Amino acid sequence: MRRKTVAIVGCGVIGRSWSIVFARAGAHVRLFDIQPKAARQALHKARQALRALEIGKTGIEKIMGRVHAVATLEEALDGADYVQESVAENADVKRRIFEQMDAVAAPRCILASSCSAIPPADFMAGLPHEERCLIAHPFNPPHLIPLVELVPAPKTAPKKITEAKRLLSQSGQHPVLLKRPIKGFIGNRLQAAVVNEIMHLMAEEVAGPADLDACLRWGLGLRWSLMGPLETMDLNADGGIADYIGKFGNDYQSLGGELGCREPWQARAVKNVIDARRSILRLDRIGARVAWRDRNLLQLRELLEPRPAGKHPKRKGRR
Amino acid sequence: MRRKTVAIVGCGVIGRSWSIVFARAGAHVRLFDIQPKAARQALHKARQALRALEIGKTGIEKIMGRVHAVATLEEALDGADYVQESVAENADVKRRIFEQMDAVAAPRCILASSCSAIPPADFMAGLPHEERCLIAHPFNPPHLIPLVELVPAPKTAPKKITEAKRLLSQSGQHPVLLKRPIKGFIGNRLQAAVVNEIMHLMAEEVAGPADLDACLRWGLGLRWSLMGPLETMDLNADGGIADYIGKFGNDYQSLGGELGCREPWQARAVKNVIDARRSILRLDRIGARVAWRDRNLLQLRELLEPRPAGKHPKRKGRR
Repeated sequence: MRRKTVAIVGCGVIGRSWSIVFARAGAHVRLFDIQPKAARQALHKARQALRALEIGKTGIEKIMGRVHAVATLEEALDGADYVQESVAENADVKRRIFEQMDAVAAPRCILASSCSAIPPADFMAGLPHEERCLIAHPFNPPHLIPLVELVPAPKTAPKKITEAKRLLSQSGQHPVLLKRPIKGFIGNRLQAAVVNEIMHLMAEEVAGPADLDACLRWGLGLRWSLMGPLETMDLNADGGIADYIGKFGNDYQSLGGELGCREPWQARAVKNVIDARRSILRLDRIGARVAWRDRNLLQLRELLEPRPAGKHPKRKGRR
Repeated sequence: MRRKTVAIVGCGVIGRSWSIVFARAGAHVRLFDIQPKAARQALHKARQALRALEIGKTGIEKIMGRVHAVATLEEALDGADYVQESVAENADVKRRIFEQMDAVAAPRCILASSCSAIPPADFMAGLPHEERCLIAHPFNPPHLIPLVELVPAPKTAPKKITEAKRLLSQSGQHPVLLKRPIKGFIGNRLQAAVVNEIMHLMAEEVAGPADLDACLRWGLGLRWSLMGPLETMDLNADGGIADYIGKFGNDYQSLGGELGCREPWQARAVKNVIDARRSILRLDRIGARVAWRDRNLLQLRELLEPRPAGKHPKRKGRR
């Protein structure tokens, strides 16, 4: 893409991962955080994250050479094409920073929020330039999981949505536009459907946490990392999805009546899940396992999408 | 593993894929189907499936050299260590074939059913050797998706469950034991939770089928092909899953109340899903897309599990 300037406002886990997304795709990236040290810390941690992916030193320097920490919001937004806000998930905090950003940023600059749960209207409605504001909700970590949910505010301009979509696509992400806001957006609703039913299966003592995870990892997850559930159904009957629904649609719906995905969790099920996870992985080993996850996610992305726009520089070797 | 003899009873899509699983792992495989031509046809189609995976000719001959079609159930079961029944999903049909198999097979032989929905008691209870009968429910296609749900009958012997589990693991599958039968077992319940909520999101006009699929493919599916949802939660908070649940447990549960995974599908949502899939993929291109899926699933499995027990011979080259 034409060299863009992107500002990251809020430099926690999500903000620093976003900085990799945009810098990797060639943008100039400015990091700003209200806490003076946080932006510089994010630079350091982003570099660490790249190292964990076993990207060569040259590749890391190329990416990180485009990322700079700045001291004020004004510096961050000066001449920026796009802002990715990733401050705390709190409507008041978000509204305050959006008011400030809207006052400072050039009118053409897109203001996107990493918000995962607050309806966009709650902190964007009524801003003088509401038309360039929208939610761009990532999945952790955005530099490895490309899905981004775009949720427009009531008055977001269609032209701005298209621009945001294009910029994110050109940065190697997969933006999905919600036609209307809904609680939890799409990804977290689907995640809750699965997690809540898992808690129900725990409460019913059908299987333990490791086996429940295995059902995703060695079954449904393999499918869904390649195809969504609808394409899966489409390819699983000679006559496509109409044929599949004709054969199995009633089964899904009758099963639906039995699912526990709407029920609250049982305390004993929760305790068993936690105990089981701790016996599978000691708390002090989580960092190492996250590094393993990230290396594998990178390889998965390379496999599924051999030449994404925002590709990482070639790693030194395959594990 | 010690060279085992495995009988495949019922030679449709699932039966022939199972024949690849066991033959690939070194077992002698006998194919039997009540329809005289079906076993020979399955040999042919299994060979086709291996060709589509771009396995070299030598590799295919090695695998298929161990698979033979036989004309009678007696021949199929003579000296067999394990039977994988994959006949029609109908309790009467299953009961009849289990009665026959139980009468013919040596008592030590395990009789496993690919049954996906009928409770094991409905067709296994009361058989003279019920103790060696159980459900081993695969996910299509079993030679590429390793998950197998083991569901014991009321009197299945623990020793036989262990044996079945070991044989399946040694054949490169990932067996998961259900501590008690439940409608839909685990995989189809979790699949229904997701598909039913997707139909709900369609009805609510939040997004179209391609975007809903994208939320799995580029987001949740990537996670879940590496980790289950519980490990995902465990790695997404510094203090592990207890910390994560403390922060987000209430959100999942309050979201639960809004999910539509228990609701019946709306006709218009179903129609929109079908129309959209057909505009994405013409019906006559499903075969080619299935071949694409299978090649990619093989690569995913190779990536996730570099050295499974029942590994395919090296393919000629990477895509």
